[in-house]
Amino acid sequence: MSAQGLQEKYAAHSACFGCGPANEKGLRIRSIVQGDEVVADWKSEPHHEAFPGVLNGGIIGALLDCHSNWTAAWALMKQAGADSPPCTVTADYSIKLLRPTPTNGVIHLVAKPVEVGADRAVIEATLMAGGKPCATCRGTFVAVKPGHPAYHRW
Amino acid sequence: MSAQGLQEKYAAHSACFGCGPANEKGLRIRSIVQGDEVVADWKSEPHHEAFPGVLNGGIIGALLDCHSNWTAAWALMKQAGADSPPCTVTADYSIKLLRPTPTNGVIHLVAKPVEVGADRAVIEATLMAGGKPCATCRGTFVAVKPGHPAYHRW
Repeated sequence: MSAQGLQEKYAAHSACFGCGPANEKGLRIRSIVQGDEVVADWKSEPHHEAFPGVLNGGIIGALLDCHSNWTAAWALMKQAGADSPPCTVTADYSIKLLRPTPTNGVIHLVAKPVEVGADRAVIEATLMAGGKPCATCRGTFVAVKPGHPAYHRW
Repeated sequence: MSAQGLQEKYAAHSACFGCGPANEKGLRIRSIVQGDEVVADWKSEPHHEAFPGVLNGGIIGALLDCHSNWTAAWALMKQAGADSPPCTVTADYSIKLLRPTPTNGVIHLVAKPVEVGADRAVIEATLMAGGKPCATCRGTFVAVKPGHPAYHRW
């Protein structure tokens, strides 16, 4: 298990709300490769809640979206045998909320690629908290081409 | 068109990340009934971006999730002929990102109920920016029963 997050390694200057190491007001998730999966541990702040003790569903989506996007970038890099990941963007993501997500402990994210194409990957991810799965995500993430505003943003 | 947001009217003390009037670090959307739809105008701050000039996809989901949840609460209230909305929570939501969402102007949300049952509603919503649809959302929102942690949270 690498101790370094994909974001720190490949996008240290990113200020993305969800995953930019350089965004002091962002969620700053650190997505770490662990075998065939990508994992992250995260702790919420009070203003991320929906109501006291429970994480907001939009923040849940933001965590899973950015974590899955990095899982896709890593999967595409690995498949291509490249030294660095392509810049990927979200095409779509679907969130299912299974139960309230408690905020009094660590939030754990696990993601894995389920389809990897030439320029896109489908990722499935789960958010665990309090020892239980609280939300799932399935999303499609696409490597952008030159000319797209997200090209070379990392 | 009511000038008052549903949140201010029915949940003034809510500190929800997406829609709580009392959350100074939240998105503080104001969902306003306009005929058969519910609309909101919102302006991003720099830390909500994915990269300079473009809104983060997780924030897009958070905006559409909370705005759609209030649209569901309003639709269920209207159908029941009630004086106040039930407390609804998100069961699921799916986001499609159609193009980068520019942050240099107002973000406009439009939502409408497409299925309204006894205790749940399916809502479709669109996020417009720069005169174009940039994202869509379809979600299911459920009125919780006594004993659920979200019951009587508003």
